[in-house]
Amino acid sequence: MREVFVVGAAMTRFGKHLDRSSRELVEEAVAGALRDAEATPRDVEACYVGNAVSGLMDGQESIRGQVVLRHTGLLGAPIVNVENACASSSTALHLGWRAVASGMEDCVLVAGYEKLYDQDRRRSFRAFNASMDLEEMRRRFPGGGEERSVFMDLYASFDPSPSEEEGRVGGPESEALGMVSVKNHHHGALNPLSQFREEVTLEQVLQSRRVAGPLTLLMCSPLSDGAACLVLASRDRAARLARPAVRVAASTLVSGRGDDRTRSGAAERAVARAYHAAGLGPEDLDVIELHDATAIAELHLYEELGLCGPGEAGRLVLDRSTWLGGRLPVNPSGGLLARGHPIGATGAAQAVELTWQLQGRCGERQVEGAKVALAQNGGGWVGTDAAACAVHVLVS
Amino acid sequence: MREVFVVGAAMTRFGKHLDRSSRELVEEAVAGALRDAEATPRDVEACYVGNAVSGLMDGQESIRGQVVLRHTGLLGAPIVNVENACASSSTALHLGWRAVASGMEDCVLVAGYEKLYDQDRRRSFRAFNASMDLEEMRRRFPGGGEERSVFMDLYASFDPSPSEEEGRVGGPESEALGMVSVKNHHHGALNPLSQFREEVTLEQVLQSRRVAGPLTLLMCSPLSDGAACLVLASRDRAARLARPAVRVAASTLVSGRGDDRTRSGAAERAVARAYHAAGLGPEDLDVIELHDATAIAELHLYEELGLCGPGEAGRLVLDRSTWLGGRLPVNPSGGLLARGHPIGATGAAQAVELTWQLQGRCGERQVEGAKVALAQNGGGWVGTDAAACAVHVLVS
Repeated sequence: MREVFVVGAAMTRFGKHLDRSSRELVEEAVAGALRDAEATPRDVEACYVGNAVSGLMDGQESIRGQVVLRHTGLLGAPIVNVENACASSSTALHLGWRAVASGMEDCVLVAGYEKLYDQDRRRSFRAFNASMDLEEMRRRFPGGGEERSVFMDLYASFDPSPSEEEGRVGGPESEALGMVSVKNHHHGALNPLSQFREEVTLEQVLQSRRVAGPLTLLMCSPLSDGAACLVLASRDRAARLARPAVRVAASTLVSGRGDDRTRSGAAERAVARAYHAAGLGPEDLDVIELHDATAIAELHLYEELGLCGPGEAGRLVLDRSTWLGGRLPVNPSGGLLARGHPIGATGAAQAVELTWQLQGRCGERQVEGAKVALAQNGGGWVGTDAAACAVHVLVS
Repeated sequence: MREVFVVGAAMTRFGKHLDRSSRELVEEAVAGALRDAEATPRDVEACYVGNAVSGLMDGQESIRGQVVLRHTGLLGAPIVNVENACASSSTALHLGWRAVASGMEDCVLVAGYEKLYDQDRRRSFRAFNASMDLEEMRRRFPGGGEERSVFMDLYASFDPSPSEEEGRVGGPESEALGMVSVKNHHHGALNPLSQFREEVTLEQVLQSRRVAGPLTLLMCSPLSDGAACLVLASRDRAARLARPAVRVAASTLVSGRGDDRTRSGAAERAVARAYHAAGLGPEDLDVIELHDATAIAELHLYEELGLCGPGEAGRLVLDRSTWLGGRLPVNPSGGLLARGHPIGATGAAQAVELTWQLQGRCGERQVEGAKVALAQNGGGWVGTDAAACAVHVLVS
């Protein structure tokens, strides 16, 4: 396997882009990443494009990458259109990494995009909920597919405080959940590309509209639009650039095991493989972007990534270990909760943020001296687990 | 690069499977391919799944592979969901080939499936037409997206007899177009897995309902459902099997260049790369499966694959060179016209047919002594070209 480097990284601001098409969003991200990589479209040997729900949102299926890249000068190169729900563009990144690691290509482009926001929110929820086995969804959530994201119910069922009366908010666990949101909104307020740039207080989080179980609106990721793009290259190419490139020390992908509860979950397996491949462990990490689709997910992931033992996750956010300035900042971008969650763009955006962190380009939200970073991106739902999970370790 | 072998190949019958779900179709193909490969699900290290329009047909998006493979025992392995319109599962096959060729995996599964037939044909056509840039489609075919496949109009615009009055049927070129259909239906009648198993006469073909330009209904591929599956493995694993495995001598993928008419088309570029990679040329081929979405496409592809010079394609079918028993049989399975065209399954099905041909397992439609085979699978449309094209060369 050859070493693989991120040589270009760019993204649009995430948010509600009612007046911009998917193509316009992708074009902005692609142009930025190519500029960053000092590359022209002719340098790009293949494109891996992640998107989750364009077919359901605007009817465009089958050749999504060709459509959004049509005017970029990239057509002609192999284009692989991939989806894996919320892990669509981390799956694309995994394929791009394979392409360069195997020596098959020297320079590839990875893009992720989504237009999820619609003024008719039922359309957005219907599309989002297609990230579940629809047969299972209709059985578990009769009639639930149009009025809300059933994922919030799924996350709520993994409430780390199951002994509490369902939906009760207020105990110490709720404070930790609330502080995840306060933290990520604090980070997002420092990120010019974040969907939400307002600080929120614990009181605001706990008193916002109840969505599912202990989850309030501010503990749930929003509907978002956006695009993110990365250019990957071999060491030879990376070495020619003025700016230090970032090395991909591990790239792993797994699927969920469905209803097999006897083995570990998708995130644990993907992370274990990534630590093994990179030859490091959680104690070596300086900064993390993880899949905080809800505040509950972030706390669970602290355990699944090995950042703490069982039941200790809440403490990490309450004692500010995972805040900017803390021992191991998590989601300095604002994460899915504040930066936003345009499904097919999220995985690529995590890698964009971490590339910039390792290059010291993050301004007010910079994690000082960050040298080792991890991105964890989950996608979809099948039975008792995420349907997909991809993990990337980046090092400067 | 390591050598890659097809060690298992299976498919469902193609046709209208109103009473069977996508999952059931995929399960049949997967079980057959694993049995063929003498493999269990535990042997499979990754799955590459191609599908084009499930999101538009039944609303299932994002994690299509996880959903259809849910009860196969394969969950847990990395699952990559890919689409590239009609080239979706040849794109999946290309990724599977890369996985084994690079040494990253020893044994992978490639599956393609589609349920395209709906009693409301507008739904089928709408889904099929999403294989085009929708913005372009609405401009070129106002209101055309629901009542018919606009691809038939696109193919008709490449009528090899443009000097004829539009839509006129009857000249020598029309006879060649008609004979493509007669040939492929003749082959399909010998294939138990073919959607259509009836011979047709030239008169029946020419007198069937006019669809677009010179194309009649029997010159156009039908709406179909079906699934196909391949297991790929390294030489070590292949060598342990009782049945001789088939080697993948080349696997190439390109995208169309959109409106750039100055360079060669997607099929020509993909084929040229494949011949180069395999170290052979059209004169070395014993059997071909190609993308006869219409009879016009088959004739054009004879030229693009280098089987003949400009204007000579009609002769190859009229003198029976490309019939079973001829010098170079094309589409012995019946091709898209007769075996059927369940979009996301077609590319994998071509490779299944050719694997079986090289193993001498094709009964009445066997190409005697076939040792070198080529599969060409096109997908979608962008500007003046196919949006994607994948070519595989298989050798015994």
